[in-house]
Amino acid sequence: MVNHSIAHQLLDDRDDEAGQWIIVYDFIENKPNPNFWANLKRVSETHGGSLIQYSVYKTGSLREAKAVKGLVKHYGGEAIVFRCVESNI
Amino acid sequence: MVNHSIAHQLLDDRDDEAGQWIIVYDFIENKPNPNFWANLKRVSETHGGSLIQYSVYKTGSLREAKAVKGLVKHYGGEAIVFRCVESNI
Repeated sequence: MVNHSIAHQLLDDRDDEAGQWIIVYDFIENKPNPNFWANLKRVSETHGGSLIQYSVYKTGSLREAKAVKGLVKHYGGEAIVFRCVESNI
Repeated sequence: MVNHSIAHQLLDDRDDEAGQWIIVYDFIENKPNPNFWANLKRVSETHGGSLIQYSVYKTGSLREAKAVKGLVKHYGGEAIVFRCVESNI
């Protein structure tokens, strides 16, 4: 069965790269559509990233980072993506 | 006049380094003391970093990143610090 969810469409990107990415996003003046959360869960379940705050998603996959940014934009939000290394300062 | 605010005490650290840091913090089960915000403002005014979300602070100074992490801990919160580069994925 072909899976047509927006999450899976956005994940259909051949490139991947290991590393660490943080996606800081915001839905200004409105809460995201419940489908945003359902699709974010789909992405998380297949790629292993997770929310570390209500508006901050952490992932070890470039492909997942792109998908999460794409989801935020699809549902009308704004996203900033950072490539990161956790620091022990 | 000597400035004894916790913000200035925490900034009294000789090391500094340019770069980009993100501090993701949380005050679990309680809101931060209003003095947290006053001290965060002091740090921001002297070093130029800022909140990019309610719980996400961005700075171009290692010294400021350390001070913000110190402030969060001083007021009973938890902080994760990332050294970052903004990504155009």
